[in-house]
Amino acid sequence: MRATLIYGAGDVRVEDVPDPKILEPTDALVRVVRSCVCGSDLWPYGARPTTEHGDRIGHEFLGVVEETGSDVSDLKRGDVVVAPFVWSDNTCDFCREGLHTSCRHGGMWGAEDVDGGQGEAVRVPLAEGTLVKLPVGEDSDLLPSLLTLSDVFPTGYHAAVKGGVGPGTDVTVIGDGAVGVSAVLSARRLGAERIVLMGRHRDRTDLGRDFGATDVVAERGAEGVAKVHELTGGDGTHVVLECVGLLPAVETAIAVVRDGGTISRVGAPQYEQVPMGFPEFFRNLTLTGGVAPARAYIEELLPDVLEGKIEPGRVFDRTIGLEEVPDGYRAMADREALKVMIRP
Amino acid sequence: MRATLIYGAGDVRVEDVPDPKILEPTDALVRVVRSCVCGSDLWPYGARPTTEHGDRIGHEFLGVVEETGSDVSDLKRGDVVVAPFVWSDNTCDFCREGLHTSCRHGGMWGAEDVDGGQGEAVRVPLAEGTLVKLPVGEDSDLLPSLLTLSDVFPTGYHAAVKGGVGPGTDVTVIGDGAVGVSAVLSARRLGAERIVLMGRHRDRTDLGRDFGATDVVAERGAEGVAKVHELTGGDGTHVVLECVGLLPAVETAIAVVRDGGTISRVGAPQYEQVPMGFPEFFRNLTLTGGVAPARAYIEELLPDVLEGKIEPGRVFDRTIGLEEVPDGYRAMADREALKVMIRP
Repeated sequence: MRATLIYGAGDVRVEDVPDPKILEPTDALVRVVRSCVCGSDLWPYGARPTTEHGDRIGHEFLGVVEETGSDVSDLKRGDVVVAPFVWSDNTCDFCREGLHTSCRHGGMWGAEDVDGGQGEAVRVPLAEGTLVKLPVGEDSDLLPSLLTLSDVFPTGYHAAVKGGVGPGTDVTVIGDGAVGVSAVLSARRLGAERIVLMGRHRDRTDLGRDFGATDVVAERGAEGVAKVHELTGGDGTHVVLECVGLLPAVETAIAVVRDGGTISRVGAPQYEQVPMGFPEFFRNLTLTGGVAPARAYIEELLPDVLEGKIEPGRVFDRTIGLEEVPDGYRAMADREALKVMIRP
Repeated sequence: MRATLIYGAGDVRVEDVPDPKILEPTDALVRVVRSCVCGSDLWPYGARPTTEHGDRIGHEFLGVVEETGSDVSDLKRGDVVVAPFVWSDNTCDFCREGLHTSCRHGGMWGAEDVDGGQGEAVRVPLAEGTLVKLPVGEDSDLLPSLLTLSDVFPTGYHAAVKGGVGPGTDVTVIGDGAVGVSAVLSARRLGAERIVLMGRHRDRTDLGRDFGATDVVAERGAEGVAKVHELTGGDGTHVVLECVGLLPAVETAIAVVRDGGTISRVGAPQYEQVPMGFPEFFRNLTLTGGVAPARAYIEELLPDVLEGKIEPGRVFDRTIGLEEVPDGYRAMADREALKVMIRP
């Protein structure tokens, strides 16, 4: 089959790879119907050291079950399913706590002998724990929004949940990428009152406004901080959702959060240290968030998507075929596209 | 009157200072009956640059109201009162949220024209907001435990509350100082099941056991981490209360907290950066805590102290007169004394 491999910074290729096969009785084979490129894929795309061999990549997909292992009874051939961005047993203590990313038996797509999501098919380990059935056909108009359940929407939602967003909360969202606007949508769904979106790409912040942002701050750094303070009587907001992953975004978060408030980060950290010394201690700031256990949120978010109450799939502004994936990476890296959907 | 001043590292003196006077109609004058030395006083005692003039010091005291300003109606001469370690109006939005340390009109003891607590008397600004009346006489045997309400006990309690300690929580407490054992007592009060106290001073960890620690780990660094992992099936505990303030303690906290868990810090940070990069992100760790808004907890904790259910005053293992304060600092810095009470 054809699948995407990354060989180094700027070097993504679509190549022939072995067809996946059932290896464990708990496996399922899924033919990929939709996949996409993640903002986090752009970190290796920007900086991965070059290697002789490529590594499989992609961790967001939905598709159709083609075959199941002998221990899989909840899924059958023909089921349309979405995969969260790590695979997990959904039964261990961490999964029961909603922390599927720390599952005792789970792992990452594209690692070792597990396929990446940006290909024609995927062997899904622990299929019953990992996959969530979708009550739609593989030609449904809802596929883009359903695909977001695999990562980007639950990631924004995780930020809002961990940040403690609820009715009446004031929120700042830092970053107008697909995760940022998903965080806006999530904060709105959880009842946030004021949602300030910090981002400077007009088309993206416009989508953010559609998703529920009440204010947009295009300025960055000290100027952006001053603007948020101006909007909030000098105090900042109770919650800040950090959806970038770079240190300046964290510094901005610290500067715009209210005393006693919470910074919830879901941008994959491209930093090792966070300035949380005495001033932040005296202000009683909380730093929370982390990689999103998407699996924990899918059942909760699915009904709103099926009923059309929310359209998180609007983050996809370009659809490509599998052979065009290298250009899809380029387009996202160049900020030509917000988020690229792949139709293998 | 006589009061304590700090002139530099290792240089604490008791000197004559002007008698306090009512300056604002919201002031009260309090004759200090008991004060004490805080672990946080040891930071300037260890490192403050030498100056020509001394600065007033001390922020924990209880005493008797001697005089009140014209706007003070809730307090009268003769009332026995305890002062939390910052003064605050107790009415602004931050105070109503329980964050008196960020009070819009409050401030620190010993700063500008406000007295420090380690002296014979204190002018208390915003007296009605700041002081809490105690239904005891000034000769009560409960004074040591009541004095802890001004800082050390609420500080441990703040750690536990912000850490989300509740019935059944597993907790590690790092540090066997007065705050550490107060955190143990607090975690126990909130229903924690397992409380692992990390500390290497036997007399202090024994007090920690009396306060509710179920396990004591005397080892430090990697060895201590291994011990906590051994006690917890390799996972660490859901909550870690960091009661030291040094970077190695924070690093230990990160190493012994369970994935998805919370590090709640109340040790005044002697560091500027916290290692909260990608590994901690992937583990979904939360860093919370901060300077304790003691005022927010006094009413909640007072009944247990009055009823003798808890004896947080056991942290005091030495009582001195005001003129002996310099030696009290030395004794605490040398770890001869856990916490020194002052009887002016």
